[in-house]
Amino acid sequence: MAASEAELIRRYFHGLGAPRADVALGIGDDAALLQVPAGSQLVLTTDALAEGAHFLPGAAPRALGHRALAVNLSDIAAMGAEPTWMLLALILPEADEPWLAEFAGGLDALARRHGVALVGGNLCRGPLSITITLAGCVPQGQALRRDGARPGDALYVSGTLGDAAGGRELAHGGAPHPQLPQPRELPEPQRQLRQRFECPQPRVALGVALRGLASACIDISDGLCVDATRLLQASGCAGQIDSARLPLSQALRQQFGARALPLALGGGEDYELLFSADAARGAAIEQLAARLGVPISRIGAVRSGAGLAVNSSNCDPAVTAAPTAFDHFSR
Amino acid sequence: MAASEAELIRRYFHGLGAPRADVALGIGDDAALLQVPAGSQLVLTTDALAEGAHFLPGAAPRALGHRALAVNLSDIAAMGAEPTWMLLALILPEADEPWLAEFAGGLDALARRHGVALVGGNLCRGPLSITITLAGCVPQGQALRRDGARPGDALYVSGTLGDAAGGRELAHGGAPHPQLPQPRELPEPQRQLRQRFECPQPRVALGVALRGLASACIDISDGLCVDATRLLQASGCAGQIDSARLPLSQALRQQFGARALPLALGGGEDYELLFSADAARGAAIEQLAARLGVPISRIGAVRSGAGLAVNSSNCDPAVTAAPTAFDHFSR
Repeated sequence: MAASEAELIRRYFHGLGAPRADVALGIGDDAALLQVPAGSQLVLTTDALAEGAHFLPGAAPRALGHRALAVNLSDIAAMGAEPTWMLLALILPEADEPWLAEFAGGLDALARRHGVALVGGNLCRGPLSITITLAGCVPQGQALRRDGARPGDALYVSGTLGDAAGGRELAHGGAPHPQLPQPRELPEPQRQLRQRFECPQPRVALGVALRGLASACIDISDGLCVDATRLLQASGCAGQIDSARLPLSQALRQQFGARALPLALGGGEDYELLFSADAARGAAIEQLAARLGVPISRIGAVRSGAGLAVNSSNCDPAVTAAPTAFDHFSR
Repeated sequence: MAASEAELIRRYFHGLGAPRADVALGIGDDAALLQVPAGSQLVLTTDALAEGAHFLPGAAPRALGHRALAVNLSDIAAMGAEPTWMLLALILPEADEPWLAEFAGGLDALARRHGVALVGGNLCRGPLSITITLAGCVPQGQALRRDGARPGDALYVSGTLGDAAGGRELAHGGAPHPQLPQPRELPEPQRQLRQRFECPQPRVALGVALRGLASACIDISDGLCVDATRLLQASGCAGQIDSARLPLSQALRQQFGARALPLALGGGEDYELLFSADAARGAAIEQLAARLGVPISRIGAVRSGAGLAVNSSNCDPAVTAAPTAFDHFSR
């Protein structure tokens, strides 16, 4: 007989993630009971991965466990918050224990790296989907919002852009949101790009360090142009991006040549941070990049007005549109 | 062209639920930013409804919106907390706007009744499932836990038991977890029972009022015997239930006769509260029942030892087993 729901939870999910002293009650009561530090605000986000929409049947469960948390961590990072607790709602077609062990392993490793405890969840039977709700804490009034950019601010981005979109294309010949078993013997540039797609590394430490420095921040999940437009709209400003300044990896240039730039502008799933900061704070940001070992590139500026221009042209939809449909309904 | 994801969120989910002053940032940034009152602990729970597992294709969307929140509210109630904020992860096969309007309407009505604001979520395409994460707040150290029952305490239950299980059988001839369009012209007892199944009313005010009075509390989602056993195990105690004291509605007796009792013992989905309290607090509990207008029945007692007995017999699995498989995997 298959293990019961309660037994599966005990085997694979009890004690998952980092132990935390602020968990008064974790898994096992009607709800979790948690201690938000005095003087802090609570940050909450939820993101789901559904088979067919975000990954294909047969996707490696360890990578799914990593990815389901990573996309949520990236949202918490973009708020400048420290991640704390998560809840997992897992809908599974069957009680496949080797799958569960791998999935939980991927989730646990990333959760421990960022000090996150699993404090509750729900397990039921149905077509595979993974929904994580992630909480974080941020000192009162210090959260990074989208709406704080001001004309004259500089625009910065962390890491390199377009790699994940390139990796997605390599993994699946251009079809949207594939996720195949982990590649081991690919040529190095391809391996690097696939890794960026399948195992995104959220910029949690950078988000925390940007408190008091960035005027606005957003994570790049849907592509630089889309997410920059969101930040600018929320702030009531215009912006300009210099495409020559976009950080492109050698792997992306090598593999995609002239297509590297459109992938960087519109590819999405980078999970890097885009932020604005007073132009006078450039030296502080350079020091921060050096201290954290995270590349940070100044890619443009905030202006008064509305809209986003790339190289003085209005953002060209043909160049900047995401190569795959990130909108799940408009198609 | 179908509405975009962003447009659907704007139309159906922005501003859903009750406005709350403690929401510093709701839908529209990378994450929500929330103010937990000083001196309070945070309570978090998540519960999912998946088509096939919890309801059948064609289930009324308004009832689904109600039910998806109600099952979470019941968990918050069982902690003695006040519900505050929710996040919704909705996986939908298509952008069916009449469905969305009804679903959001059912969710909104229940959220407003309990002062809950929708502060975030995720919408994507796939087989229908609804995952809600609900937060609440409770004064430091006052949460109702499962593990506080002590030998000599009395066992109480709110409302009536077995109605939802009866309603489920009526709706679907005994198959698990059906949910058909709202019945309008059924005979009165059947209508009442179906209503109890399809529109559970979580005991939020009772949970709050039980702070300082109940020694342990749990909500009855999987059946009285199963949930009583959980409370007793967590508390390291035994318990005894007198079946003659179980609160059975006239509708259940009328419709199910001798089967009313097994439905009350094992049926599940009642979303009533089961709690223990010092036997000397009986008068205070009677006053509370009168003040809130909620029937509360004393159904048994906590003993030293382990296990649950119904009428001095050990809990008979044949009588107390849930008539439908609540365990999603062990079958």
